Amino acid sequence: MALDLGALALKYTGLAVSDHDSIVAINIFIALLCGCIVFGHLLEGNRWVNESTTALVLGLITGGVILICTKGVNSRILIFSEDIFFIYLLPPIIFNAGFQVKKKQFFRNFATIILFGAAGTLISFVIITFGAMGLFSKLDVGPLELGDYLAIGAIFSATDSVCTLQVLNQDEAPLLYSLVFGEGVVNDATSVVLFNAIQNIDINHFDVFVLLQFIGKFLYLFFTSTVLGVAAGLLSAYIIKKLCFARHSTDREVAIMILMAYLSYMLSMLLDLSGILTVFFCGIVMSHYTWHNVTESSRVTTKHTFATLSFIAEIFLFLYVGMDALDIDKWKLASSSPKKPIALSAVILGLVMVGRAAFVFPLSFLSNLSKKESHPKISFNQQVIIWWAGLMRGAVSIALAYNKFTTSGHTAVRVNAVMITSTIIVVLFSTMVRLLYLTA
Amino acid sequence: MALDLGALALKYTGLAVSDHDSIVAINIFIALLCGCIVFGHLLEGNRWVNESTTALVLGLITGGVILICTKGVNSRILIFSEDIFFIYLLPPIIFNAGFQVKKKQFFRNFATIILFGAAGTLISFVIITFGAMGLFSKLDVGPLELGDYLAIGAIFSATDSVCTLQVLNQDEAPLLYSLVFGEGVVNDATSVVLFNAIQNIDINHFDVFVLLQFIGKFLYLFFTSTVLGVAAGLLSAYIIKKLCFARHSTDREVAIMILMAYLSYMLSMLLDLSGILTVFFCGIVMSHYTWHNVTESSRVTTKHTFATLSFIAEIFLFLYVGMDALDIDKWKLASSSPKKPIALSAVILGLVMVGRAAFVFPLSFLSNLSKKESHPKISFNQQVIIWWAGLMRGAVSIALAYNKFTTSGHTAVRVNAVMITSTIIVVLFSTMVRLLYLTA
Repeated sequence: MALDLGALALKYTGLAVSDHDSIVAINIFIALLCGCIVFGHLLEGNRWVNESTTALVLGLITGGVILICTKGVNSRILIFSEDIFFIYLLPPIIFNAGFQVKKKQFFRNFATIILFGAAGTLISFVIITFGAMGLFSKLDVGPLELGDYLAIGAIFSATDSVCTLQVLNQDEAPLLYSLVFGEGVVNDATSVVLFNAIQNIDINHFDVFVLLQFIGKFLYLFFTSTVLGVAAGLLSAYIIKKLCFARHSTDREVAIMILMAYLSYMLSMLLDLSGILTVFFCGIVMSHYTWHNVTESSRVTTKHTFATLSFIAEIFLFLYVGMDALDIDKWKLASSSPKKPIALSAVILGLVMVGRAAFVFPLSFLSNLSKKESHPKISFNQQVIIWWAGLMRGAVSIALAYNKFTTSGHTAVRVNAVMITSTIIVVLFSTMVRLLYLTA
Repeated sequence: MALDLGALALKYTGLAVSDHDSIVAINIFIALLCGCIVFGHLLEGNRWVNESTTALVLGLITGGVILICTKGVNSRILIFSEDIFFIYLLPPIIFNAGFQVKKKQFFRNFATIILFGAAGTLISFVIITFGAMGLFSKLDVGPLELGDYLAIGAIFSATDSVCTLQVLNQDEAPLLYSLVFGEGVVNDATSVVLFNAIQNIDINHFDVFVLLQFIGKFLYLFFTSTVLGVAAGLLSAYIIKKLCFARHSTDREVAIMILMAYLSYMLSMLLDLSGILTVFFCGIVMSHYTWHNVTESSRVTTKHTFATLSFIAEIFLFLYVGMDALDIDKWKLASSSPKKPIALSAVILGLVMVGRAAFVFPLSFLSNLSKKESHPKISFNQQVIIWWAGLMRGAVSIALAYNKFTTSGHTAVRVNAVMITSTIIVVLFSTMVRLLYLTA
């Protein structure tokens, strides 16, 4: 039960004080984070650029410089880990999204969001899986099993809810924002559940019973994760209201809110639930109840602290993705020429677009049918924007791809290297194009 | 140059998502942090208790429970590491202290603070070293070399500036607070410099030249560390003033301040300077210049965010110290009966008291002599409080003791185990007694 952070820090991370290289790495990384904020701000008038694109580009440049300095051996300062992502970077981003979301819009469109996020993701998953089974064999990718194809379907059905937040403006387009972002959160949960279900299911004995089991598990996860998040939020509200912190009140209130939110996420992970859903609903409840029980200065502090933490985590993530894209080992392994991953990425991007179209338009139609006249319907233009906005693949896809196709950061087998590089290309390409298009 | 956080997380920390035990550990630790805040608040009317004592006691209880659950194998959730301490816990605490310190008082008493912090620490170091050389041989501690005695002198000359903050009230006793706390910061720097110098000096060839070298090194470190901190603070003020962050201004401003402060600390570590001094002066400059250039909401946010981070880091630290005190391996190794470490601790505590008295009273006298009539002198009562307040030994002592007497958390040699357990007893005892006395 002991986390030997000390020994590991000394031996492996290089978080050791004595390890000169690691301190250099931390310094470079923090300086880059500062650089992203400053450049992102300076170039803001441009409207083609924001902190995320700056971070991507700075990451690519730094990766290139390191690659040259180390004579082609290495391009990364930090080696990507899905644990860093899931334990440190994702919780503040999703919690802040829940904390700042316009609740009225979100709950008004709740049915549509669930429809898009759950049913839509499943449709997209089926199409990408079958498409990949049909098309990959022509590209000579390597030996892939049925389980791999199912995993590919889940990996590329996970949209990037982080990027959406940066591009759509909550105040200018509240309906679209709540639909696309809300879908993103439910979609995250769905694809993580799908991905885990695939890892555990015995594929050779697939029948209706297994399908029902899967649906039951999904409903169970969705329900318990939400309840846990709501409970954590209500408990924090109760504690803060009952205790009436007097001296040092603000610091204690803020500390309790941060710790309780993180506890809800980790508890959700502990119970094998969807931490994303839990911490998202915890954020909603905290902004709706807890936030109104605290002092005025706590309100200002929490609002901006959560936003700042989320902001730093996002830049960190994009900086990393940019840096990791140049990792030379993976490219060498992936192919003697870089044609194969590029062809594969193009196929995957096509499948992603088809898979998304296959549910956005029919489900929007369904949603419009069920709406009363007083509610605004989703126009065709808006449907196109929803389709387009959700094409972006991001950190969740990368984290799942690493989970499936590597063992602790190494991509030793060729087919795995191909899949990882393709995922990174898809993420980079879709992020870049989308950001440029929507900000232009 | 790569920090393989991923691989290490997977293999060693148990920060891996898949590692069930580690998630349990993280959950327990966060729940305990919440518990400390709530209990600390509930028991506040008592005035015998605050968050630090609560954390110590909760740590001891949890350690005991884990000890029973694991049948005497283990008492710790997190294994202490000086890296965790120096990289994550210390920077926010010291930065916040600089950020919130009453600058007028601090600079008015600057000469006295430097006198106490630098000259006083050296006097204390000499007395503890010679005292230990004379008295330890009678206790049959084990084979200790001259270098070990010098290290013991440095370790037990490091006062605990963290605890001081909790006990003395800046508003009620501004002169005492600034003297004792300012001394603590300079003392931290002095003892770390001393400790490092001892590790590098060739003891067999000690002469006046080496002494001059040492003094030169101390002055160089003190000067460059301060300049670096001031420069980082001024740079952040310049960036924020010049850029006039517009949209999302608060988040960017807060992010830049946090990142620049942390960068100054890490840069100081990189250049082998005193990170504590650097980040302390960075905090002072930021609160004096940067803070006045930011928006109103950024002011509220930074003030409380820094205080909250420091607050959480402090509780974390005390919780850990409490938990580590019961580590059964060290006790078993230290002695068949626990008498020896306790006798040793008593001797060390005596030396610490004598060493401190040997500089507080003479130096106060010197300081009073040099003061003009308009300035308040240090009364005898105040001198006693200064002497008493600085007796506490804390996390810096523990971190240095672990650095000297262990290799990555293990205390395999008997004499090392004795030294570590004695250090922990001294820290626990002085902290408990001091907290109880001063809050009573």
